[in-house]
Amino acid sequence: MSRPRVVIVGGGFGGLETARRLGRAPLDVTLVDRRNFHLFQPLLYQVATGALSPGEIASPLRAVVKRQRNTRVVLASARDLDADGRRVLCEDGEVPYDTLVVATGAQHHYFGHPQWEALAPSLKTIEDATEIRRRVFLAFEAAEREPDAGRQRAWLTFVIVGAGPTGVELAGALAEIARETLRSDFRTIDPRGARILLLDAVDRVLPTFPADLSAKAARALGRLGVEVRTRTRVTDVAADAVAFASPDGAERIATRTVLWAAGVEASALGAVLAERLGARLDALGRVVVEPSCTVAGHPEIFVIGDLAHHATSSDGPLPGVAQVAIQQGRYVARTIVDRLAGRASAPFRYRDLGSMATIGRGAAVVQIGRLHLAGYPAWLIWLFVHVLNLVEFDNRLAVLLQWAWNYVTWNRGARLITGEPPFPLVVGPKRDDRVDT
Amino acid sequence: MSRPRVVIVGGGFGGLETARRLGRAPLDVTLVDRRNFHLFQPLLYQVATGALSPGEIASPLRAVVKRQRNTRVVLASARDLDADGRRVLCEDGEVPYDTLVVATGAQHHYFGHPQWEALAPSLKTIEDATEIRRRVFLAFEAAEREPDAGRQRAWLTFVIVGAGPTGVELAGALAEIARETLRSDFRTIDPRGARILLLDAVDRVLPTFPADLSAKAARALGRLGVEVRTRTRVTDVAADAVAFASPDGAERIATRTVLWAAGVEASALGAVLAERLGARLDALGRVVVEPSCTVAGHPEIFVIGDLAHHATSSDGPLPGVAQVAIQQGRYVARTIVDRLAGRASAPFRYRDLGSMATIGRGAAVVQIGRLHLAGYPAWLIWLFVHVLNLVEFDNRLAVLLQWAWNYVTWNRGARLITGEPPFPLVVGPKRDDRVDT
Repeated sequence: MSRPRVVIVGGGFGGLETARRLGRAPLDVTLVDRRNFHLFQPLLYQVATGALSPGEIASPLRAVVKRQRNTRVVLASARDLDADGRRVLCEDGEVPYDTLVVATGAQHHYFGHPQWEALAPSLKTIEDATEIRRRVFLAFEAAEREPDAGRQRAWLTFVIVGAGPTGVELAGALAEIARETLRSDFRTIDPRGARILLLDAVDRVLPTFPADLSAKAARALGRLGVEVRTRTRVTDVAADAVAFASPDGAERIATRTVLWAAGVEASALGAVLAERLGARLDALGRVVVEPSCTVAGHPEIFVIGDLAHHATSSDGPLPGVAQVAIQQGRYVARTIVDRLAGRASAPFRYRDLGSMATIGRGAAVVQIGRLHLAGYPAWLIWLFVHVLNLVEFDNRLAVLLQWAWNYVTWNRGARLITGEPPFPLVVGPKRDDRVDT
Repeated sequence: MSRPRVVIVGGGFGGLETARRLGRAPLDVTLVDRRNFHLFQPLLYQVATGALSPGEIASPLRAVVKRQRNTRVVLASARDLDADGRRVLCEDGEVPYDTLVVATGAQHHYFGHPQWEALAPSLKTIEDATEIRRRVFLAFEAAEREPDAGRQRAWLTFVIVGAGPTGVELAGALAEIARETLRSDFRTIDPRGARILLLDAVDRVLPTFPADLSAKAARALGRLGVEVRTRTRVTDVAADAVAFASPDGAERIATRTVLWAAGVEASALGAVLAERLGARLDALGRVVVEPSCTVAGHPEIFVIGDLAHHATSSDGPLPGVAQVAIQQGRYVARTIVDRLAGRASAPFRYRDLGSMATIGRGAAVVQIGRLHLAGYPAWLIWLFVHVLNLVEFDNRLAVLLQWAWNYVTWNRGARLITGEPPFPLVVGPKRDDRVDT
């Protein structure tokens, strides 16, 4: 008789943790992902700002599970579900299961303005990161060559929308690039004159953090020269400008680089589960799950991570952070093994280990329980925890060494502009007869 | 009175060397490149096979010259030349010069079959390397999922056209990937069964090397399971097959991955120089230069590196290798400084320091003067020389550590398939009713 089949869709924090914890179980485990690697998203902003290379934060899924003889990896794009037949339907095949774990995560949304996506890239995938990197470093190149002062100013103006950890980290890194990394690189412009704005609709940065840490983070951003605009909502994004409104009024500024770190919604598979299983979705499209992380009426189907809406207390649903996904992944693996052994399982209980975000060199905020830390100690903890959590040992070593080097030299060695630049960079009539470049 | 302006087009080995050697001269130096980084091409095949990340072999041009206050970098695409007005015409601007150094290198050609380029990528740029990487690792993924035995075999067949150093190094690396790196990664296929063919129209691999080293390289390839076909010319490239002919007959084999390491020709700027300056071109489009590396009738214009045809002896023109470009770059800088001081310069004389190519771990061939080495000693020399020649110190350290890690673990940590895979990977009817993936 063949062994029970567990299919995990999604090799992110949640799905990969489940897979790894089932490596010794008497099961057949199939991990399905449309990419061949696990991506350490917390450090994606460092790829986007040229401090790390993609390979340093990506782990090939096959390498991670290769010693697990019961586990196989399938590169496929899951599109639909045959709930009665217990099959995941991919674009070019199908995967039968006895137990299914869906962990396909979240994606960005643009508050009803999908046309903004092409103008203001978000930061979810490796390609997002290299695209942002490209735009950021191209902006300085174009500014160096632009004879028109107004257009030059637009190239040297960067706007980040969304002041959660991603937006704050991007803003801080951008400021360091302009103030330090590139300071001697140009001959016409002074990159230290770059203007960096960080916008958010709520009243403080890092709104999910304790208020005192939000305030410290805002001050650290200020010291780096980042202009923070809270209670500010974006009203329009164009190729060369962004418009926003706040209680103080409306503004439209010229900018060529807008980065989107706001608005998260569930991945498309959420809607599929709702349709096929009658699962309830929340306002962000996340699948509402039982305390056991299963879909109501379908104990054989687990949904975890950013795709899941798991509300166990009056505090509301668990946040879409890595720790939640990892703990749920571990829980699901344990539950599956318990079921095999005929044991009952307790509901999932999240242990909030805290939050952390970095603003720049020597500046971070960390909350662990009641402990609130900021500044250098927080920064060191941030480094330590992130390195430890990288999945592959060689990534940990590589990142550690890269960081040590970057720290000493202020360098960002991976600041390549990949892909042919979109020449012409400079347009329009020249302002005088003198030839220029 | 303003200082003399030296404009260098191309930040490869030749152009960058010239720029670095003029850092202290009483000149204004402008380095023009359409990319913002210098690429260490000899190690590009390692990015293509997932052993190194792009950032480890690329150096941002601005970082390399940032301490040279007389040097500026312009990100632009040089398209044309105004010889009388002494201006380089870029797509979106112009750069005036007193002295011009053109070092835009070479590109691949497909022997009159430009339509093969989309099917059989070559290896000149970072994007080429990540495209090849993508196709190689996708091939194994598709094979793992393909139920049809014939189509699976095609996915596991790799053909490399051109057995110069690039082709040999690609073939050896591919063989190592199949035999070692991926050996435990798959559950349906055995990657060690991959078939790797290396084709060349001439009668031996590494035809520019001494015959005994060619023979040793061929034997090393054989030990890795690479099938070497010499005196074999490609007659057709299709999406799922390649056809070739040799004195033994014609053959057509099913393959989904053809890599092009043959056929080099000069970059497009060669034709521009011919038209604007009346410069002579050779059969490969390279600009024929005087012994002083200048264009006949234009002592203010130097052409160096792969773009130049420099024939000082009856042996024929200097080969398109890095050492030639670097030495010419150094020579041109010295000549320019000599001219400033009113000194005459001797013609350029190339010092052939030798050749080297690697086949795989512990297997390389090195020729230095009359010294011919193969095996482990050659391999260590190859590693040493390549690391030393990386432009930035942090690249040297990173590559050294990455290699040390790869060696110990047989890992290739950068084997990401970037970009959304081209689903469907599996097409066609299934061979039986049983569902499969």
